[in-house]
Amino acid sequence: MTYYRDLREFLGELEKAGKLARIRRAINKDTELHPLVRWQFRGLEEPERFGFLFEKLTGIHGESYNGSLASTVIAPCLEVYALALKCAPNRQAINDRWAAAFRHPIPPVSVQKAPVKEEIHVGEGLLAHGGLGEFPIPMTGNGWEALPRLTGCCWFSKDPETGEVNVGTYNGVYLGPAESCARVSPRGHMRIHWQKCQAKGKPLQVAAVIGPSPALVMTSITEIPYGVSELEVAGGLAGEPIEIIRCETVDLEVPANAEIVLEGEIPPDYILPDPASGEHTGYTFVDRTALPFHIRCITHRKNPIWHDLVDQFPPSESSVMGNLNREANMLNFLRNACGIPYVKDVAFHHCGGSRRFCVIRLQRLGATSIPNRNVWHALQASLAVSTEWPKITIAVDEDIDPWDLESVFWAVSFSYQPHRDTHIVLGRGATADQSGGPRTLPLDEQEYPRSRTGPQGNSSILIDATRKWPYTPTSLPKREYMDRAKEIWEELGLPRLRPREPWYGISLGEWPEEYQRHAEMGERGEFDKIAAEILQQKKKV
Amino acid sequence: MTYYRDLREFLGELEKAGKLARIRRAINKDTELHPLVRWQFRGLEEPERFGFLFEKLTGIHGESYNGSLASTVIAPCLEVYALALKCAPNRQAINDRWAAAFRHPIPPVSVQKAPVKEEIHVGEGLLAHGGLGEFPIPMTGNGWEALPRLTGCCWFSKDPETGEVNVGTYNGVYLGPAESCARVSPRGHMRIHWQKCQAKGKPLQVAAVIGPSPALVMTSITEIPYGVSELEVAGGLAGEPIEIIRCETVDLEVPANAEIVLEGEIPPDYILPDPASGEHTGYTFVDRTALPFHIRCITHRKNPIWHDLVDQFPPSESSVMGNLNREANMLNFLRNACGIPYVKDVAFHHCGGSRRFCVIRLQRLGATSIPNRNVWHALQASLAVSTEWPKITIAVDEDIDPWDLESVFWAVSFSYQPHRDTHIVLGRGATADQSGGPRTLPLDEQEYPRSRTGPQGNSSILIDATRKWPYTPTSLPKREYMDRAKEIWEELGLPRLRPREPWYGISLGEWPEEYQRHAEMGERGEFDKIAAEILQQKKKV
Repeated sequence: MTYYRDLREFLGELEKAGKLARIRRAINKDTELHPLVRWQFRGLEEPERFGFLFEKLTGIHGESYNGSLASTVIAPCLEVYALALKCAPNRQAINDRWAAAFRHPIPPVSVQKAPVKEEIHVGEGLLAHGGLGEFPIPMTGNGWEALPRLTGCCWFSKDPETGEVNVGTYNGVYLGPAESCARVSPRGHMRIHWQKCQAKGKPLQVAAVIGPSPALVMTSITEIPYGVSELEVAGGLAGEPIEIIRCETVDLEVPANAEIVLEGEIPPDYILPDPASGEHTGYTFVDRTALPFHIRCITHRKNPIWHDLVDQFPPSESSVMGNLNREANMLNFLRNACGIPYVKDVAFHHCGGSRRFCVIRLQRLGATSIPNRNVWHALQASLAVSTEWPKITIAVDEDIDPWDLESVFWAVSFSYQPHRDTHIVLGRGATADQSGGPRTLPLDEQEYPRSRTGPQGNSSILIDATRKWPYTPTSLPKREYMDRAKEIWEELGLPRLRPREPWYGISLGEWPEEYQRHAEMGERGEFDKIAAEILQQKKKV
Repeated sequence: MTYYRDLREFLGELEKAGKLARIRRAINKDTELHPLVRWQFRGLEEPERFGFLFEKLTGIHGESYNGSLASTVIAPCLEVYALALKCAPNRQAINDRWAAAFRHPIPPVSVQKAPVKEEIHVGEGLLAHGGLGEFPIPMTGNGWEALPRLTGCCWFSKDPETGEVNVGTYNGVYLGPAESCARVSPRGHMRIHWQKCQAKGKPLQVAAVIGPSPALVMTSITEIPYGVSELEVAGGLAGEPIEIIRCETVDLEVPANAEIVLEGEIPPDYILPDPASGEHTGYTFVDRTALPFHIRCITHRKNPIWHDLVDQFPPSESSVMGNLNREANMLNFLRNACGIPYVKDVAFHHCGGSRRFCVIRLQRLGATSIPNRNVWHALQASLAVSTEWPKITIAVDEDIDPWDLESVFWAVSFSYQPHRDTHIVLGRGATADQSGGPRTLPLDEQEYPRSRTGPQGNSSILIDATRKWPYTPTSLPKREYMDRAKEIWEELGLPRLRPREPWYGISLGEWPEEYQRHAEMGERGEFDKIAAEILQQKKKV
């Protein structure tokens, strides 16, 4: 397998797969683009969703742009996400691909010539084509937000002590032809680089890369431990080294096949307020700060494609990607780092902003039920990956579909006793979660409330919704009856069935012999014989 | 408005509405019928579901039957349920119809002549046409169950002290041409009648009515306080009196327009084991008992229609009906009996067997947020309707769709702090809920565990997922942008949208003036002016 040469080759494959809408009519990037793309998340089912390539873009003051814009091309749905990984469109294949990438990272290789250098704007020529204004950077939260937002930038920076390169996806806004910013959370690795530069009183050199190959976009957005190289993991995902080339003005190497690179620096001595921004939590962020970014050089391909990721109210591109990334990583963590073999699947849900709401499916591994201690090991370990998420973790049995909330809450309704099967864990954080406290409190007090008399911090809830002992069979006919009835259904020409699990009854360990005997007699129609037995078993009251 | 004359007229209306499948080919009631009907609950979306009328029935030993069988004709989906009530197909209309029926019950009227007397089998002629064997009573849990089950019987009986008539839907099985039984729970009103007869050493006279008009079927299945007349409430639902006629052999009056009536008595001195039966919890019941029923007389219409209700693994006809009945009654209880005006909607969910899982939507009534004490009043009061359900009650704000689990768990993910917003309530029962204890314990110990050292009983969990203070706006573009984008979407011929709430962003009380000012400037495209302001607000670190 060869991986996609660049974003363009990938878009070609998307189009062949019927998953790219090429929009040729003019679309206003400031008033029309994001609302249009957003409709698919509020109006189509997940499998129907697709990527957009806007070929003719205008701005609110009548501007027109040379390049095009790709939006929701990486993860509008699982099928496209799998295409971006070049793997089969199912969770197993996706998880395997991530596990392999972490096990077999591939270092990048340097090259001397690169498409991303087709145009270079630097020094006095920096603004010759308008600087950052050359690109159709879209407004993303129309009616609430103030400025066009850079959503798909992969930021490259170096640890000034170790020289290790980090790649991370951070949001920024357009602040002028050579000015932007990066909103990096307190845990963001680029912030650690910046803090180290601060101590030395030196600016941090950075490069914001737009439109590298999908594997790097997907790695850049994933939480990867400090010190692990995103470039190498992305190489592992792609199955081949990422080609990189030296920047013009900063000491960094960036993907040769990217669409656009913004080179520049982050001064050590001040921060900026971040304008309002719609977020994955389903709410608009206020009161955030960002690191200022002075652009010194812009290099790009001819007719560059601006790459836009759609975050905000879930589901979104960011929550599709977030769920799939976190599922792969949490599964790997629980099974391989914590050593809990009972973990079969992990599901994250859009409604939890792809972080807060997690369901763990456990398997019995030959035992009649999962040992309670192992259920609690998995539940408690799920909290170890972050100071704040998951906020709700639910353990379910292997016959439960952890991605189907109806199935999960059937388990909660009938396999869970609140007083016995709930642990509430304190001392947790609540970044970006307004339930921690009102805006009138300082941010750190919202994120981690401190009390001298009551509980400290915020909390998570762990719910054991596995069956604690054998249960009687599920109340659906046995498989052979449902199979036969489906044939009749189809013969009769009734509406097309889309079978939903479970569609036949199964035994769950408690099925007394006498009931089995009667069931077999019932299948043979020995009603009179059964009735005679039952009438004989009458009990005086 | 005149109500349906009988089940037959209603079935005609169903057929006109495209909601009845008339099955003319032979169907084996013992091996094919229930699995076939069940497929719609595992393979069709709720609005697609419909009623079945089977016109040619056979049995496992080659039997054939004169009459037909109607299954899932009352509540395969909300639309049919509303048709059965002759009201508009929405929850508001359904709730109003129930509230009106309770406020204005209409007593039945006695008549002298009735279709249900077209054929009378009594005394020596009782078994002339086969007794109970004349009817195509179906097997319902194929592969697990032992005997054909009577699912749609409305049992009539009289309180031997007060003479008050009760009508209730209880399950029974075929135990011979003149023998059946009724599984009445310890809280069932017919059991109270039977216990009073027991004290006198006298049998309880009963009549099991099959196929009365839909209004009575729906009332019979609803939990109605002891002493309130189901016949009068059904009259209230129908908007006209139910016509009743004297039985032949027992001191009871039954609906004149029913399809079939089984008259007889329940002996005072013994009970029977109930065979396995698939239940609304999603599991198969074992270890239950039933009251024996000796049939003394059978009356029926010519070519009678056997009426079958589909319960078992949710969703089912019984959970559609259960959700809608309970929503109407819980809403009425919280608003009118408990006096909590903030309650806007109540949602019960299939996954909780239409009992355990309840969501209460509260409205602000002009205040900026709902007073916490009122949220807790509603949550706690929800437990007052039963010793055991709801098991999980969640309170949400008015912008949350309580029927959409994604929406509910978005609220739980971002408006709830487990340690602060959870109450676990002990001392609750767990009838038909195997999470209470394994089958090896006595039934009463499963349903209400007793401990000398720990908690007593089972439990319910109450979750306050309302916002406790103003929140920032939801992260979706404002309505005007989404409206405009929808027009463009349609012009472009993109796949048909089925908009899902919420599809545009709204303010939730926290939206600082400066952000509003910038948002307005952003809508006018004053990007350079905003950027200049932001760059001026740089903050030294």
